[in-house]
Amino acid sequence: MCVPDWIDRQEGPPAVTTGIDAEATTDVPERLLLGSGPSPVPPRVLAALARPTIGHMDPAFADIMAETIGLLREAFQTENLATLPISGTGSAGMEALVANFVDSGDRVVCGINGLFGERMAEELRRAGADVVRIEAQWGRAIATEQLLEAAAAGRTGRTDAIVVVHGETSTGVAQPLEGLGDWCREHDALLLVDCVTSLGGHALRLDEAGVDAAFSGTQKCLNCPPGLAPFTVGERALEKLRGRAQPGRSWYFDLSLVQDYWNPDATASRAYHHTAPINMVYALREALRIAVSEEWLPTSWERHRRAHHALRDALAVFGCARLAPDGEQLHPLLAVTPPEGIDEAEVRRRLLLQHGIEISGGLGPLAGKLWRIGVMGAGARREPQEQLVGALATLLDADPGEPLAALAEGWRA
Amino acid sequence: MCVPDWIDRQEGPPAVTTGIDAEATTDVPERLLLGSGPSPVPPRVLAALARPTIGHMDPAFADIMAETIGLLREAFQTENLATLPISGTGSAGMEALVANFVDSGDRVVCGINGLFGERMAEELRRAGADVVRIEAQWGRAIATEQLLEAAAAGRTGRTDAIVVVHGETSTGVAQPLEGLGDWCREHDALLLVDCVTSLGGHALRLDEAGVDAAFSGTQKCLNCPPGLAPFTVGERALEKLRGRAQPGRSWYFDLSLVQDYWNPDATASRAYHHTAPINMVYALREALRIAVSEEWLPTSWERHRRAHHALRDALAVFGCARLAPDGEQLHPLLAVTPPEGIDEAEVRRRLLLQHGIEISGGLGPLAGKLWRIGVMGAGARREPQEQLVGALATLLDADPGEPLAALAEGWRA
Repeated sequence: MCVPDWIDRQEGPPAVTTGIDAEATTDVPERLLLGSGPSPVPPRVLAALARPTIGHMDPAFADIMAETIGLLREAFQTENLATLPISGTGSAGMEALVANFVDSGDRVVCGINGLFGERMAEELRRAGADVVRIEAQWGRAIATEQLLEAAAAGRTGRTDAIVVVHGETSTGVAQPLEGLGDWCREHDALLLVDCVTSLGGHALRLDEAGVDAAFSGTQKCLNCPPGLAPFTVGERALEKLRGRAQPGRSWYFDLSLVQDYWNPDATASRAYHHTAPINMVYALREALRIAVSEEWLPTSWERHRRAHHALRDALAVFGCARLAPDGEQLHPLLAVTPPEGIDEAEVRRRLLLQHGIEISGGLGPLAGKLWRIGVMGAGARREPQEQLVGALATLLDADPGEPLAALAEGWRA
Repeated sequence: MCVPDWIDRQEGPPAVTTGIDAEATTDVPERLLLGSGPSPVPPRVLAALARPTIGHMDPAFADIMAETIGLLREAFQTENLATLPISGTGSAGMEALVANFVDSGDRVVCGINGLFGERMAEELRRAGADVVRIEAQWGRAIATEQLLEAAAAGRTGRTDAIVVVHGETSTGVAQPLEGLGDWCREHDALLLVDCVTSLGGHALRLDEAGVDAAFSGTQKCLNCPPGLAPFTVGERALEKLRGRAQPGRSWYFDLSLVQDYWNPDATASRAYHHTAPINMVYALREALRIAVSEEWLPTSWERHRRAHHALRDALAVFGCARLAPDGEQLHPLLAVTPPEGIDEAEVRRRLLLQHGIEISGGLGPLAGKLWRIGVMGAGARREPQEQLVGALATLLDADPGEPLAALAEGWRA
């Protein structure tokens, strides 16, 4: 009695029935990802991603969730109980931040010095906030005093939140957080932070900085595929959420419901909210084990710092100048001017298609004027940087000796 | 000159540095997923998931996106240009549906006969809609006349949308769509449909039914891990979106922006919106190739129908009665009463932990009173059903002969 594994086709277009046991297609090219993200995903993380899917209420998955939460707390350097990955990409993290902690009519001081600050302002505007835009030139950090002056100038004597982008991916600038948390604590405001590109690759101690809520992405310094948004919230922000007269507009991102499923304080049984992206959580846990448990965060920060400066020195030989001045640079994202007189888009295109290396161009007002090069996780190592420098030398018709020597010197420093 | 692949640890807690080239952990158990979803993911789809991550603006990824869009159109049986996966789970699809096509103050007739209808009503309420709740008992379909009477009874002479759940996962009921699309066309209203559990496993021709917008999930009949929400929108709904005086509350789910990235009409160049969950898109494409290109949808629907009835007959031998009456059953989700006199939760627990088979319990008012068994994709085959029936016989201390014979008979029918 032979039962076919898969029922025969009865009619229809003449396609080959290869069935569920066939080999998967292999038309995805290998790339060295040195752009603004995604970053190189180690085979070990891809292998974790491909572990068998299990149920979202399976006790075995609860163990994986609990470990992931613990590792995320270390990555954020926080003791916040409410720490978990939001089921969407980094931008979903931004939307969740605003949806949960900004009410319509709130006065919010928003630092804007690049595309992601602009995006934050747009999210705030859509949420009905009174957005106070504090801008700096794209490529520069925002002066802390400007943010605090604007916060203190609330007409009703009240500012509800200060929001800044810690790692501005569009320009490679790191925003200092010093002084913001203290002010917010003294004035009953919240400090909300985007650390998509900085988490794991640029020194950041969330609790020390007095950050009330923050989000990140998986595809930058954590070397995990995109699809989840690490998220953390402290008690002051949770108190505001609990005090809401009515629930916010978003059900999907409502942290009071998401928390019931992730159960990050391990006090209750888990209640179904939505079906978590199971396999992505496997991958995030594996990636966090590498960055947090095995390498240790301060070591990773130092490695990113060295990698950033080594590559900057190497690219300087080609005539590339970093956009951010000394002291304002974001280590995981090196944004430089392309060498003068070249067709920068064509060089990037050939770098990708002929050499299999991705770097990113400029965004918005900096389109055509910038190369954005990822120095993220497994990409923040000497070997991939040598590949990039060698390929650029070929495409620019330059001698690779001097830039490679500068790179080597940078790694020795 | 030896440069270490990974910088040495300088200090910190004494963890073993295994590094990025180590083996991934293997603590994920193998489960036979016959619950309400996720469903069994074929190794072929997991292999696709683990292909190397590439950039979200890579031309090679554009090809993968284009193929995915085409396959999704076939899965939905639609010619809608605006067809793409939303970057979140099925619930994100529901939120995207409401965020884009329901305005504050809209009069919306919402069919509610289970948890997901209730959830839809909650999403509508949060969006500020005037929600007209048309309820049926959990386990029954809603009478079309009731929906249309409510739609026609708008005090201002206007109803903006009818929303129904085509496949109610909490009860295993399929909602007939006949007549709804015509009414909506005649009265300038939109027909919005949740087909999370029906897509690919229960006959559904979206264009024929006159559905204006619909969403689904990947982890049901498509046998893909959870994490994306297939989504499709027709011209009438897009017109409403384009006519908005101001953008909606959600930036992440704003289809007018998401479309610029996915470029489903292949007319413009792609514009960055957010970073798509690259690897999940690989997996969805592979899963759609199996369901759509290789098996062909009508064959798949027929297989799900047979699998549903075969399993129902087998479980009837244990005394399990299907909740939905004949003609209202949803083939991919068989919801039955557990055998009388047993501790149903304990049997499910032992089924999972001793036999590695997941089935789901009841939700809400049906908690403790229902088993929800997935008949989805690769789970809608005789072999996994034999495993389930055999394991249940062991746990219920029953002779497996008769239920297995009923199963075999059902598959022959």
